[in-house]
Amino acid sequence: MNSRQLTELAQQLRVDSVRASDAAGSGHPTSSMSAAELMAVLLAGHLRYDFERPQHPGNDRFVLSKGHASPLLYAAYKAAGAISETELMTFRKLGSRLEGHPTPRRLPWVETATGSLGQGLPVGVGIALAGKRLDRTGNRVWVLCGDSELAEGSVWEAAEHAAYEHLDNLTAIVDVNRLGQRGPTRHGHDLDAYARRFAAFGWHTIEIDGHDVDAVDRAYGEAESTKGQPTVILARTLKGKGVAAVQDREGMHGKPLKDAEEATAELGGVRDLQVEVPQPPAARMLHAVRTGHLELPRFAVGDEVATRDAYGQALAALGSARGDVVALDGEVGDSTRSEFFAKEHPDRYFECYIAEQQLVAASVGLAARGWVPYAATFAAFLTRAHDFIRMASISGAGVNLVGSHAGCAIGQDGPSQMGLEDLAMMRSVHGSTVLYPCDANQTAKLVGTMAGLEDVRYLRTSRGEAPVLYSPTEEFPVGGSKVLRASDTDRLTVVAAGVTVREALKAADALDAEGIQVRVIDLYSVKPVDRRTLREAAERTGCLLTVEDHHEEGGLGDAVLDAFLDGRPVPRLVRLAVRTMPGSASPAEQLREAGIDAEAIAVAGRLLVEHAIVP
Amino acid sequence: MNSRQLTELAQQLRVDSVRASDAAGSGHPTSSMSAAELMAVLLAGHLRYDFERPQHPGNDRFVLSKGHASPLLYAAYKAAGAISETELMTFRKLGSRLEGHPTPRRLPWVETATGSLGQGLPVGVGIALAGKRLDRTGNRVWVLCGDSELAEGSVWEAAEHAAYEHLDNLTAIVDVNRLGQRGPTRHGHDLDAYARRFAAFGWHTIEIDGHDVDAVDRAYGEAESTKGQPTVILARTLKGKGVAAVQDREGMHGKPLKDAEEATAELGGVRDLQVEVPQPPAARMLHAVRTGHLELPRFAVGDEVATRDAYGQALAALGSARGDVVALDGEVGDSTRSEFFAKEHPDRYFECYIAEQQLVAASVGLAARGWVPYAATFAAFLTRAHDFIRMASISGAGVNLVGSHAGCAIGQDGPSQMGLEDLAMMRSVHGSTVLYPCDANQTAKLVGTMAGLEDVRYLRTSRGEAPVLYSPTEEFPVGGSKVLRASDTDRLTVVAAGVTVREALKAADALDAEGIQVRVIDLYSVKPVDRRTLREAAERTGCLLTVEDHHEEGGLGDAVLDAFLDGRPVPRLVRLAVRTMPGSASPAEQLREAGIDAEAIAVAGRLLVEHAIVP
Repeated sequence: MNSRQLTELAQQLRVDSVRASDAAGSGHPTSSMSAAELMAVLLAGHLRYDFERPQHPGNDRFVLSKGHASPLLYAAYKAAGAISETELMTFRKLGSRLEGHPTPRRLPWVETATGSLGQGLPVGVGIALAGKRLDRTGNRVWVLCGDSELAEGSVWEAAEHAAYEHLDNLTAIVDVNRLGQRGPTRHGHDLDAYARRFAAFGWHTIEIDGHDVDAVDRAYGEAESTKGQPTVILARTLKGKGVAAVQDREGMHGKPLKDAEEATAELGGVRDLQVEVPQPPAARMLHAVRTGHLELPRFAVGDEVATRDAYGQALAALGSARGDVVALDGEVGDSTRSEFFAKEHPDRYFECYIAEQQLVAASVGLAARGWVPYAATFAAFLTRAHDFIRMASISGAGVNLVGSHAGCAIGQDGPSQMGLEDLAMMRSVHGSTVLYPCDANQTAKLVGTMAGLEDVRYLRTSRGEAPVLYSPTEEFPVGGSKVLRASDTDRLTVVAAGVTVREALKAADALDAEGIQVRVIDLYSVKPVDRRTLREAAERTGCLLTVEDHHEEGGLGDAVLDAFLDGRPVPRLVRLAVRTMPGSASPAEQLREAGIDAEAIAVAGRLLVEHAIVP
Repeated sequence: MNSRQLTELAQQLRVDSVRASDAAGSGHPTSSMSAAELMAVLLAGHLRYDFERPQHPGNDRFVLSKGHASPLLYAAYKAAGAISETELMTFRKLGSRLEGHPTPRRLPWVETATGSLGQGLPVGVGIALAGKRLDRTGNRVWVLCGDSELAEGSVWEAAEHAAYEHLDNLTAIVDVNRLGQRGPTRHGHDLDAYARRFAAFGWHTIEIDGHDVDAVDRAYGEAESTKGQPTVILARTLKGKGVAAVQDREGMHGKPLKDAEEATAELGGVRDLQVEVPQPPAARMLHAVRTGHLELPRFAVGDEVATRDAYGQALAALGSARGDVVALDGEVGDSTRSEFFAKEHPDRYFECYIAEQQLVAASVGLAARGWVPYAATFAAFLTRAHDFIRMASISGAGVNLVGSHAGCAIGQDGPSQMGLEDLAMMRSVHGSTVLYPCDANQTAKLVGTMAGLEDVRYLRTSRGEAPVLYSPTEEFPVGGSKVLRASDTDRLTVVAAGVTVREALKAADALDAEGIQVRVIDLYSVKPVDRRTLREAAERTGCLLTVEDHHEEGGLGDAVLDAFLDGRPVPRLVRLAVRTMPGSASPAEQLREAGIDAEAIAVAGRLLVEHAIVP
């Protein structure tokens, strides 16, 4: 397309953004209008993309980081022939694929769900890492950002990582329209302010008038030919560009234009230009997957092995069996044991340094390209990436997250390092699987199983050594549990997981010596839970005692209740969990202080069996 | 102290760090040793601090962002005479104030809990904001950072905000020892790399040899005399400095030295220098608190008012009554209605732009200085700051967090904007209070009540209008609930909160028409819950139905169960919550699709009353 045609196309994208938002009665037309030329030139001249084959390995990848500008994206889809005028007008309606913010669950051309700002670029870094270090199809990643979202720290984690990894296949396009939701941004139209920051972080920077299609075209070309570093294009634009009633005016964010017909006329009327989007070059198939036999590590029953060690060994083994498995570290690989993978598969290991948002975002990006990422850090520090995990679930991203050093059992380091909220966080993620092994063989098996699950998966590992309870041949299905002790005369069921399993068994011994038989369940699958086994135990024993190294809200105890919330009779229940704020102490002291060790279980068990209410 | 004495003092801090870690059997001596001169010169010549009066308004404030270097901090306390040799040797032991990472719950001289990296500087920005814009005592804030933690995006949110607010009372000291936990950092000893970044963000930068006490002293002086912008001192140091066995070597992170006696000898032996820490200048009392009568807004029963509107109006009123109340915005003040406060009290309003980690960190810093912060953004986006909220609870920080646009009831914007995990997140925070009002008068009252609570408090507000149910004179104690409908013949209790209260009442009407009397409880206090009322309802009606606009894990349903987890008989229970991934749709359609509207409640209620198990 020539300049006049590109300008016309941009006007069409504006008009369609205005019309779609008007039909919906909500949406963000003004945020779409500022970036119309940026999108038009990309679509018509630079993005190499086969809309009929979104999984084509040679396709460029486009991420709309400013996800609220979805009308612009959908208008572009229409111009590219991917959706119809009729579908465009379903924008934001019940059942429509065209949601307020784009998601890959609904649309095959969307790489990642956006709408929480500052996430598109970090995920784009993950996609670009896949392209540069793994897929090597020569494709490019284009991320359209807003200027407001550059205030998010996650953008600078991404900036740092992209430059460090020399991601010259990545281009960030910043639509500097100067206006956020509630008013001017910190830097307004000061493109230099942004350029100084990106340049300092190691990026090639280009400043342009974002409404000049020739300037935009030249900038894209310059980005494509820049080697050794990522490029950011800082485009001066006007929010609501082209319609005087809203252009560059405050208070015009996130709502349809008052008079869509008048605006359409002012923009030159409805057009129906169709774009021939450049096709990707032929590319080899997406990364070969070695299908070697999985030889998980085997641990001898009775040995003392930390589950984090088993994680590291199992992951390294999984990496040998499957060429699509990759591992990511948040600069704690020696603690999480991800470094075992690094030693054997350095080409598939991604060091993300202390930047947990980028750690998870890179995983989401790699998963979007078909890789199977395992990202590990301390369980406590995964909370840093909660919003990214939340958005990953909206994407339906197949990421494996691993939180080590869970619970007060870590000991002396104190509460800042203790994951005591991670089960609550991960259980509340839509579609998640939450696993919490207590021994090494169980851990190894679950590491292998995780790879084949859907959506977000979480594995919780422990710092200290624990006795190997299970044979290497034991199976641990997701949604299952293990009844470690049972008899016909059980009067109580203790439900434990991870470090509390050992304590539960000790308590059961103590109570058994007093004539109180206790059933013990290892609930390694925290979500989904084994409803059948829990219900049977409740029927047979009458009361349940849950014990967990986690705050009392949202963890194991609540998971157990999932089995009874369908109106059936509920057993009598007591929950032991970490209710106090721990300090520094040895691991054994921590369990005692928190009231989740064997003695505390025995005391509570006795009371529960003998009294109606535990005082 | 002269240079020789300062050097001696630094050696003493090293020796004491080595000895304390050795006595503990764990800890981070090498991370302490790199910063010994930086700490010695600060303590002896620049920090103005009265250890006997930590709340003195004129005190400078010191934040150890690299909290794992706690041995250095405690060694400094000993040198300042604040703790004894005996106490120093209790480091990391059960019951000791000297935890693995410092916390203000235990030690009066600690401003904020650290140990999750990248948080000290953002909180320091909050403290510096208090000093610069509110307290105006002329004190300074010194933050000692590690180099590894500069990878955290939160550091750059802080860098941006500090420069934007011209915080020349803030100095960041970066201990560039080149080594992270598992190996070299991205930039090693390249001080220029860090300087370029900070300079681009608007900071004054100084690069020095961090082991040269004269250079450190000059740098501190330069920071003190720099006007209009914050200063960062980039200090080249060696991890484990002074002991050849560990100095500048990998694999020496986070563990005691192998031979503490030999190391002590190599460092010149044990010393007992005492430092005269400079005293703060006389300063006026901490900010005056106006104690005007609180005139909360009053809403007429039956009117339709969004709880977010009531929040904004109540907060503005609270600000008029109390001079210590401040408000913070994450660039959505027009949506959360924080802007109502901004209009009336612009001097106490802090715009943090789209940087939720900084938003919460600034609140923690302001609270540390005695202010009462209310920080609001979308409930969904508070997940961005989860790790900061977690650390705030370890600090025992009195922050009020407000999440608007909760649940699928927001409608068309789709899942990225819906807070569906916020109750789970906030309930699992130690010591938290979680409030979820359904009407405007209730919201207003709770906004006022929050100010007087301990620890982290959370208020969940809604986007859409809701009928005013309560009179302006009604009281809503924390830990209470409201029984909106009850009779002697109730066969079911529906527990709702927020947007589902209206649905519950409608369902109760429908069921009543069929002859099924229903008790309805408005559980506005989600944590703590009103155990007494819930238990009574369970006893009287036999079964409970909870309904919430939140994922099923960790929210209202789990909160209700808190009332029954002491071994007492549990009522039959059914929980209605958002189990599917919402798309875009109208608010009413969203509630229907999620199965939490009046019809869904009526269907489930009928089944629960008539059958043992809900199919």
